[in-house]
Amino acid sequence: MPGEIILIGDELISGRIGDSNARFAAAALQAVGLAFRAAQMVGDQETDILEAFRLARRADFVVVSGGLGTTDDDITNAAAARFFDLPLEEHPLMLANLRRLAVKRKRKFNNAHRRMALMPKGVDLLDGAFAGWSLMDSDGRPWFFLPGVPAEFTGLFTSKVVPALLDYFVGQKSASRCITVFGISEAEIGRRLEGAAAKIAGANLGYYPVFPEEKLILSVSGGSEEEIKAGLDILEDEICARLGRHVIVRGPQSLEEEVGGKLRERGLSLSLAESCTGGLIGHRITQVPGSSSYFKQGVVVYSNQSKIELLGVSREILDAAGAVSQPCAAAMAVGARMGAGTDLALAVTGIAGPDGGSQEKPVGTVFLALAAPEGVVVEKNWNFGDRNGVKLVAAEAALNLLRRYLAGDINFSNL
Amino acid sequence: MPGEIILIGDELISGRIGDSNARFAAAALQAVGLAFRAAQMVGDQETDILEAFRLARRADFVVVSGGLGTTDDDITNAAAARFFDLPLEEHPLMLANLRRLAVKRKRKFNNAHRRMALMPKGVDLLDGAFAGWSLMDSDGRPWFFLPGVPAEFTGLFTSKVVPALLDYFVGQKSASRCITVFGISEAEIGRRLEGAAAKIAGANLGYYPVFPEEKLILSVSGGSEEEIKAGLDILEDEICARLGRHVIVRGPQSLEEEVGGKLRERGLSLSLAESCTGGLIGHRITQVPGSSSYFKQGVVVYSNQSKIELLGVSREILDAAGAVSQPCAAAMAVGARMGAGTDLALAVTGIAGPDGGSQEKPVGTVFLALAAPEGVVVEKNWNFGDRNGVKLVAAEAALNLLRRYLAGDINFSNL
Repeated sequence: MPGEIILIGDELISGRIGDSNARFAAAALQAVGLAFRAAQMVGDQETDILEAFRLARRADFVVVSGGLGTTDDDITNAAAARFFDLPLEEHPLMLANLRRLAVKRKRKFNNAHRRMALMPKGVDLLDGAFAGWSLMDSDGRPWFFLPGVPAEFTGLFTSKVVPALLDYFVGQKSASRCITVFGISEAEIGRRLEGAAAKIAGANLGYYPVFPEEKLILSVSGGSEEEIKAGLDILEDEICARLGRHVIVRGPQSLEEEVGGKLRERGLSLSLAESCTGGLIGHRITQVPGSSSYFKQGVVVYSNQSKIELLGVSREILDAAGAVSQPCAAAMAVGARMGAGTDLALAVTGIAGPDGGSQEKPVGTVFLALAAPEGVVVEKNWNFGDRNGVKLVAAEAALNLLRRYLAGDINFSNL
Repeated sequence: MPGEIILIGDELISGRIGDSNARFAAAALQAVGLAFRAAQMVGDQETDILEAFRLARRADFVVVSGGLGTTDDDITNAAAARFFDLPLEEHPLMLANLRRLAVKRKRKFNNAHRRMALMPKGVDLLDGAFAGWSLMDSDGRPWFFLPGVPAEFTGLFTSKVVPALLDYFVGQKSASRCITVFGISEAEIGRRLEGAAAKIAGANLGYYPVFPEEKLILSVSGGSEEEIKAGLDILEDEICARLGRHVIVRGPQSLEEEVGGKLRERGLSLSLAESCTGGLIGHRITQVPGSSSYFKQGVVVYSNQSKIELLGVSREILDAAGAVSQPCAAAMAVGARMGAGTDLALAVTGIAGPDGGSQEKPVGTVFLALAAPEGVVVEKNWNFGDRNGVKLVAAEAALNLLRRYLAGDINFSNL
């Protein structure tokens, strides 16, 4: 049951903005065992839009993104009315919703708003609050028209389009879950997970990279809600067993949300000492609303002098072992914890490149350390990548070290 | 002369990875006055690829991305050979280049490498080092086949495809420049730049947002190299005059590269004190290779306690004016500069939200400070956005404050 997605907008075809809806929708479909066979992108010209619509009749279902807004170049509804040979009329429910929204936002309801309610006659709104709608064409092919704004597109696609497609093509309920994986190649994930989904009726498994993580989307469709939940439980456990320690988050939350939640739950405070990551770990931790309740302070110690002054790393360690070394990482973590008076401290020192590498410590060598009431633990990490890649992997590995500590998965006997 | 781009790959159409080549190519074309009219994306199935090729004959030129690699699912060359009715043969120059590359990389030359050299007979290599090639079809329509790997695609597109298209469609040389703009809405940029490019023969102006910046691409084609350079000089000056202080970088470099270069040139050292940005400014500064020569240290002072202990901000300031205030920002910058012993220090404190805002200081309120030998300067900034947006704008505004100082554009009399 291959589908097609059509992306409409001069701003897209001119490269002024990049599209993210196609990838999002494709990944969401893969997760429930559906797929696109092709995607098309055209500008805001009616002839081009109509040609895209005609071509899309090769597909079993069609998703259209963009051109439903209030400005003059939003002509998707008019093109659709012409294509399906339906009159363009104000949709009464949409009009009422837009009026209510204008009152709520203290804005004057104007002709531009009224324009959004002009839709092909008789279509079904996907959700009263947004401009999206659907219809079944004369061949029994479902079409979904969604706003191009990513937040609206992704929300409607997940909550309305996927369930409608499953209902139409499978006639079954469905649910999905997300697992985040780190520190294992895509090829190895594929090898380890071979056949895992096939064991459970109606199960599907999709995965896509968000460097340096890999996101797995598990889904099960068919049966009762209880059966679906049971199927997902089995599949999730199976996948976690096969991937072991490489599973870093079970659920939709980010790694920084995961560790932040655990820190908050257990009332633990955190400080940071970053060298090669330059502040990236602090940036990620503070992406989480409310992180000030557990994150107290960080230092970015880019010079040897700052490692000495801000963290009390000894001149001896820097001279004997160097700034990128196990003893320096340990001293940084201990110094950060003591200085900040926090329960925990995370430290990173490494060589981001492109210069500064040696035979013994090549570019990409990173030492991660965690200081805790139980002691301090240091791990060495190496990854191949450019400067940005090394920083991204180092920050991820550091947050993962903290996560493992919070999960009781750290052995403090190594120092 | 509208073109078409075809993106090929199961990994794209399944959403496993997102495409960035279409946007890059579209923006590069806009900058020289060319454009795509449509884009298509299909998987690695020959029937789908052939259908996309057939459809693309509606365009005046065609760019194909992906499927030129060494694995079994890379079938673009085979599909092209069938489509153009040409035999699939080993390209002798490509084969020789691949052999040389294998020796250089100390890898064994194998059948997978040999597979990359299998191309439709008689095509022209774009560049001996990569798998890209071009041909003119029987209607006189140029086709360009490029590897999908973004680094290879963008390199070849810029260095080979754009010049070839200009040569073919315009018969003229061309050159382009980039200007980065900040702190002005897209609509206002459009209004101010209206008619600017029309004054110069062969000039074009494209722009696209990379939040929170706007990138402008200026290009001039036609005439001698000297005439093109003169046209670009006039256009660049005209644009900079019209946008004034909103132009933050002239050239292709990033803002952090721009300020880094100036710091290095003048032998000035820098330290940071970040609150609401959480380390993002340090992360950006350390994205630049060699930044350790001017960036010494930073502190992320997320708690009041850390502002006192690490920066010497007084309890009185925190009690009377609060952590998000002009005096606190000034004290942070001065404390950071003194503590680190650097020539300059940059400080940021603000409310990233979603909580913590008030009537007087709503979410998005940010104070930026720069401490220098001449004194300290503080600026207040407000922006509407979510937590991530507030952080991105605050970091950009802070780096821009530093850039303006380095350009001699700061008045120290305000404190």
